[in-house]
Amino acid sequence: MRLRGIVPPLVTPFRADGEIDVSAFEANVESYAGEDLAGFLVLGSNGEAASLDEDEKLTLVEAARRRSGGRTLLVGTGCESTRETIRLTCKSAELGADGVLVLTPHFYKQRMTDEALRRHFEAVADASPVPVFLYSVPMFTGIAVSAALAASLAAHPRIVGMKDSSGDMGAMARILGAVPERFSVACGSAPVLYPALCLGASAGVLAVANCAPRPVCALFRAVERGDHERARRIQTAILPLATALASAHGVPGLKAAVDISGRRGGFPRLPLLPVSGAAREEIASLLAQANDAAS
Amino acid sequence: MRLRGIVPPLVTPFRADGEIDVSAFEANVESYAGEDLAGFLVLGSNGEAASLDEDEKLTLVEAARRRSGGRTLLVGTGCESTRETIRLTCKSAELGADGVLVLTPHFYKQRMTDEALRRHFEAVADASPVPVFLYSVPMFTGIAVSAALAASLAAHPRIVGMKDSSGDMGAMARILGAVPERFSVACGSAPVLYPALCLGASAGVLAVANCAPRPVCALFRAVERGDHERARRIQTAILPLATALASAHGVPGLKAAVDISGRRGGFPRLPLLPVSGAAREEIASLLAQANDAAS
Amino acid sequence: MRLRGIVPPLVTPFRADGEIDVSAFEANVESYAGEDLAGFLVLGSNGEAASLDEDEKLTLVEAARRRSGGRTLLVGTGCESTRETIRLTCKSAELGADGVLVLTPHFYKQRMTDEALRRHFEAVADASPVPVFLYSVPMFTGIAVSAALAASLAAHPRIVGMKDSSGDMGAMARILGAVPERFSVACGSAPVLYPALCLGASAGVLAVANCAPRPVCALFRAVERGDHERARRIQTAILPLATALASAHGVPGLKAAVDISGRRGGFPRLPLLPVSGAAREEIASLLAQANDAAS
Amino acid sequence: MRLRGIVPPLVTPFRADGEIDVSAFEANVESYAGEDLAGFLVLGSNGEAASLDEDEKLTLVEAARRRSGGRTLLVGTGCESTRETIRLTCKSAELGADGVLVLTPHFYKQRMTDEALRRHFEAVADASPVPVFLYSVPMFTGIAVSAALAASLAAHPRIVGMKDSSGDMGAMARILGAVPERFSVACGSAPVLYPALCLGASAGVLAVANCAPRPVCALFRAVERGDHERARRIQTAILPLATALASAHGVPGLKAAVDISGRRGGFPRLPLLPVSGAAREEIASLLAQANDAAS
Repeated sequence: MRLRGIVPPLVTPFRADGEIDVSAFEANVESYAGEDLAGFLVLGSNGEAASLDEDEKLTLVEAARRRSGGRTLLVGTGCESTRETIRLTCKSAELGADGVLVLTPHFYKQRMTDEALRRHFEAVADASPVPVFLYSVPMFTGIAVSAALAASLAAHPRIVGMKDSSGDMGAMARILGAVPERFSVACGSAPVLYPALCLGASAGVLAVANCAPRPVCALFRAVERGDHERARRIQTAILPLATALASAHGVPGLKAAVDISGRRGGFPRLPLLPVSGAAREEIASLLAQANDAAS
Repeated sequence: MRLRGIVPPLVTPFRADGEIDVSAFEANVESYAGEDLAGFLVLGSNGEAASLDEDEKLTLVEAARRRSGGRTLLVGTGCESTRETIRLTCKSAELGADGVLVLTPHFYKQRMTDEALRRHFEAVADASPVPVFLYSVPMFTGIAVSAALAASLAAHPRIVGMKDSSGDMGAMARILGAVPERFSVACGSAPVLYPALCLGASAGVLAVANCAPRPVCALFRAVERGDHERARRIQTAILPLATALASAHGVPGLKAAVDISGRRGGFPRLPLLPVSGAAREEIASLLAQANDAAS
Repeated sequence: MRLRGIVPPLVTPFRADGEIDVSAFEANVESYAGEDLAGFLVLGSNGEAASLDEDEKLTLVEAARRRSGGRTLLVGTGCESTRETIRLTCKSAELGADGVLVLTPHFYKQRMTDEALRRHFEAVADASPVPVFLYSVPMFTGIAVSAALAASLAAHPRIVGMKDSSGDMGAMARILGAVPERFSVACGSAPVLYPALCLGASAGVLAVANCAPRPVCALFRAVERGDHERARRIQTAILPLATALASAHGVPGLKAAVDISGRRGGFPRLPLLPVSGAAREEIASLLAQANDAAS
Repeated sequence: MRLRGIVPPLVTPFRADGEIDVSAFEANVESYAGEDLAGFLVLGSNGEAASLDEDEKLTLVEAARRRSGGRTLLVGTGCESTRETIRLTCKSAELGADGVLVLTPHFYKQRMTDEALRRHFEAVADASPVPVFLYSVPMFTGIAVSAALAASLAAHPRIVGMKDSSGDMGAMARILGAVPERFSVACGSAPVLYPALCLGASAGVLAVANCAPRPVCALFRAVERGDHERARRIQTAILPLATALASAHGVPGLKAAVDISGRRGGFPRLPLLPVSGAAREEIASLLAQANDAAS
């Protein structure tokens, strides 16, 4: 299983009362039918997986599978314990996941040595019925998957790739230099999508693809056909939006952007607070700027 | 509800197959019957709460309530979402918790402004049938509860105290200077127990109290009666053990120390790995040194 | 040479044209004649040593020696290179320094292993005609002197103590537990002076002693005679000023406070900018609160 | 003045007795005569400027000017104080510097707001007879020049570019998006040279160019003519050496690599320690691998 192209980590729309709005979620998935996307990720960081209980998670997997029209469906199944991760991985596979994305455990970050992480990922991969991707997002976890760890895990037949959201291009270059060709490295940080693709990343799993799939996909295709000039121009155009969503406004900002794009971001779940009206206006303007680049 | 004295955050012993060993847990609680402790905390960081599912959590609360012999029972109920935290808080109260200790949400740490945290803790306190303590442990969460936030939340009638595990005595002094007398501040970092008590902390919720309750309680009593010489001497004696458990060996090291103390630490749950034989020997020696100070 | 008591790290007053105002500096030293201070430090971090050239440094050493009335004179002589540090150490000793305080080199912080630091400090101590104190101030340097390094260097006959400005009481406890009785540990962080003295620090080298020597010295004496109640009360009173000078306002804030105290702080040297009028008013109010505690 | 191409930040060879070996330095400069370099930088971080006194600095500027054969000569003149920086800038210009590279002041890093840095750089540029480049190297200083600050300073007629050694490609993209075309951005981090050039950096000021100028220059030319395949291949080949010099071995490792390349790295100045024999062998092997890529 080779991951190639752009994948939005789907947001989870909540209603004002805090419940998941499943029909809004499904409508969002369907809204991407005409876009040049390689698949979908449910239960990622941008899907507020940390705030969902197991029943809710499985409901979203089923809904995504139902509406994904045959595209690749990845599911974020990383939990803090190995056994819980295995459980959710197996249930997601039963419900039709094509692959799982497994976040590094991180609460006891001081204990998450390469050895502990290696044994965790191997145990998950041993038990998983579907291909496994590693997920490294130090902004949230304080843990970066090293090139040595990625290379070691790439030897497992069911570990087929990783999402690196560190934004650290030196680290990504080291990872790409250490893993075999069959191991897919996806960029998880939109501000560096273009340089990551230059270095050899084969995919982007990017929050901004929820609200602005067109410029992101256009950037991917531009690099694919060697049009670096156009790729750089799109990167410049999406940079302010990507930066605002990654740092200033986070998931609530992304949900506002999804709303503005004509989809349904809905409320974030508490303790996340919705963005202010001023932030919403700023995001609308950055979104328009990003979309202009693709036209 | 005033928290005063030493409280162990109980470890959760697991069997080799990964299941909770409830009888070992109960035996541990009973082993403290003759010790000078102010109560117990279940489902804290040292109890591996992050790796337990809800049924397991409630099983431990019941078991602790059953065996705590009327001592104060605190329960760690902080989850990533506000609603899940409220749910677990209410269930724990039903099962007999005397108070709850609520960890700061932290996955989306960049979004956890004082405003977001304030609204989270207030929503939990509004819904909680029992007194609420804030829990600040930046080593695991990347978030420190500020003096301003603590002072603001201390105005809520059901928010009665906090556990500060930052180890930052300047921060603790600022918190103590900002909150009213009725608000209890517990030290959560054994390497600084003595200075924290000097500054006015009224309690210690300390991993090391699982395996070495006597010197820790003796230190508390020494400060209480003004015997600073003895307090400092005990602090010096427990420091190497406290430091080793806090940084080098973590929860697996604590569980080894609990075993060595004649109780039942059991296995950590994966992805945590047990400590090596060499670490176990080092811990045994540091534990003996700590206990010598109390005799 | 045992360091015992409170020492102000003297500020360097600059004129509007950026030149040192030596007479203001001398007047400041004389203003402390009636205070309960153990000595003076020139060329510390608070003296803007990093912005002084060698001639200016020696001018200040001479002036301080001239006006210090026989009190202990310490000189900050740490430079980035070992040879420059030795040079300034020898020149300062010639001009009458009683001891030198040697900052950890830090530009190449990734290379400053315990081994590199040990060889640096030993080379300086071998060449120094006067006793040497280590200076650990991670807020500025990114480097904390470890307990193991302090213990190793304490074996050198001319290394007699250290100033620890980390504010980390766990670290200070470990250092105090590792060094011999003859090795003086001075607290360099006023927000934790009281807990540091409880742990066994024998001195405080504190910015706030420039502008509020009385409460700081009173706190020291209170601990000395076992009056912890009074010590804690003074610590609480000086905490807001100490915190404001350590974090919000830094050296420019300290110089404003020195002005307000009736001494002559003067301008900071660029790139440091003077504090705003609003900050000056805030500092005045915090200074009054600190001084009230000593009366 | 537009900076375009590859520039080595020249190492400063010391003799065993700690003195500068000027003839070795000159021989090094001459050794680059046949290489495709755009110029030289003296007194950079890799030149151990932090450990040189003013006379030594000026000696090196003169020597470099003498031997640089008409190529562009940049001089690192950033000191902690604005006045010292201006002084060294003017003296370097007198001795023939074509431009100066000004490090952010950093000792009082908490005070180095955008406003303080802006005033510092403007004062230096106002006084400088030659073009000024900003130098941002957070690994050593803890301070990153923001896109907003770079854009603001780019309005000064004598501030013509910057060296960004952060390695953060998101930050570099933001800077490149914020400054005018005339403002040159040089990459200072060899592990990300290729992505930086893709994003629009016009130069590389890179330690590794001291010992392996050929592959680095070849990479630059490959991007220039749109041969991304070759550029990526060279980046992969130099990555292990670049990473080893940037993190594991630092300046002493670079000096070993310069020796191995047939030039004269010499000793580092204390407190920097020479690398071990094992490290030297590792570096030799990584250097061979890097050079292979250019043949």
